[in-house]
Amino acid sequence: MIKTLADLTLSLRRFAAERDWEQFHSPKNLTMALSVEVAELMEHFQWLTEEQSTGLPPEKLPAVREEVADVLIYLVRLADRLEVDLVAVAERKMEINAERFPLREADQ
Amino acid sequence: MIKTLADLTLSLRRFAAERDWEQFHSPKNLTMALSVEVAELMEHFQWLTEEQSTGLPPEKLPAVREEVADVLIYLVRLADRLEVDLVAVAERKMEINAERFPLREADQ
Amino acid sequence: MIKTLADLTLSLRRFAAERDWEQFHSPKNLTMALSVEVAELMEHFQWLTEEQSTGLPPEKLPAVREEVADVLIYLVRLADRLEVDLVAVAERKMEINAERFPLREADQ
Amino acid sequence: MIKTLADLTLSLRRFAAERDWEQFHSPKNLTMALSVEVAELMEHFQWLTEEQSTGLPPEKLPAVREEVADVLIYLVRLADRLEVDLVAVAERKMEINAERFPLREADQ
Repeated sequence: MIKTLADLTLSLRRFAAERDWEQFHSPKNLTMALSVEVAELMEHFQWLTEEQSTGLPPEKLPAVREEVADVLIYLVRLADRLEVDLVAVAERKMEINAERFPLREADQ
Repeated sequence: MIKTLADLTLSLRRFAAERDWEQFHSPKNLTMALSVEVAELMEHFQWLTEEQSTGLPPEKLPAVREEVADVLIYLVRLADRLEVDLVAVAERKMEINAERFPLREADQ
Repeated sequence: MIKTLADLTLSLRRFAAERDWEQFHSPKNLTMALSVEVAELMEHFQWLTEEQSTGLPPEKLPAVREEVADVLIYLVRLADRLEVDLVAVAERKMEINAERFPLREADQ
Repeated sequence: MIKTLADLTLSLRRFAAERDWEQFHSPKNLTMALSVEVAELMEHFQWLTEEQSTGLPPEKLPAVREEVADVLIYLVRLADRLEVDLVAVAERKMEINAERFPLREADQ
């Protein structure tokens, strides 16, 4: 059962090892694969209006979900190879963003 | 404290709402932003050999970690707008991949 | 006959007009399509070594050429919508690059 | 003077040779660089509406033109390394597209 990013990391690590794919999984190659998966996801939206992209017809959802999954899979695999803790770096980046885009008084 | 993808999802949702950014966060736009962040990450690796990409010098790591964080942030934000459970779709995709790339007997 | 970028620009303009596709060809959408085509091209190289990418087997070439064509087609279409003269901006950028990356004496 | 794609091809070839950059210019690496440049171009449009992307404010145009130039530069360099004649493959692809998307009688 995969319930967390840690589970997914271990599952992907084992999947690659069992197939002798580690030789292909350099950070360089994994960023290429990640970029390709993002493009496959983006392709679903390129000719839609923003409004259409917000209310996809139900028959489109399975394919979109599968592309989202592929993006996460390569991102988690890349983070593992780079020894990056995904949630920790995102938490740190959120702190940077909070300083970079402070709330104006009117927003508070 | 952000400890899980669920925490990150809620934190990003609040961050966008407080700044009135929801109007910009259509799935169409978020896939573009996701693609741009992946490119900023990939840029670190484009002229490196695969071997160099595997052993980045320590002074490069903070910038790479920050780009990885940006990718996760836009992916989580997009998944929230699409109402996709990231870990659940990745688990399902791993099942599909296991069928698509079965282990040969020699690997077992 | 398409012999120049100017020919290709006009041919693409007519192709889109005849199919009533101009409504989809905003610069925003065309950059998405351009990015998707580049990814389809990059996909051919993602698991290859650099050396393998330099000496593609002949049977791979037709597909690679077709992806290269798609990239040029969307780039030309985008430049037309932005009213950018492709060769002129590239010439100007080459001047900038010559200043940015001057030849060292040892290279001359 | 750079007046044609052939001029640009030769100019880029010489520029790379003079700087000993050919070692970096594998097709694999050049597709990555191309993808990064497309993303830098796309970044200008990601939060704009389609309508805004069609009528960019004049002060934005120089930066957009420079990104368009960078995309063409890497595409031409890649085509040279792959020994692909850009206009010829685009002409061939236009023939394929004409068969794939025939005009309906109502359009003629």
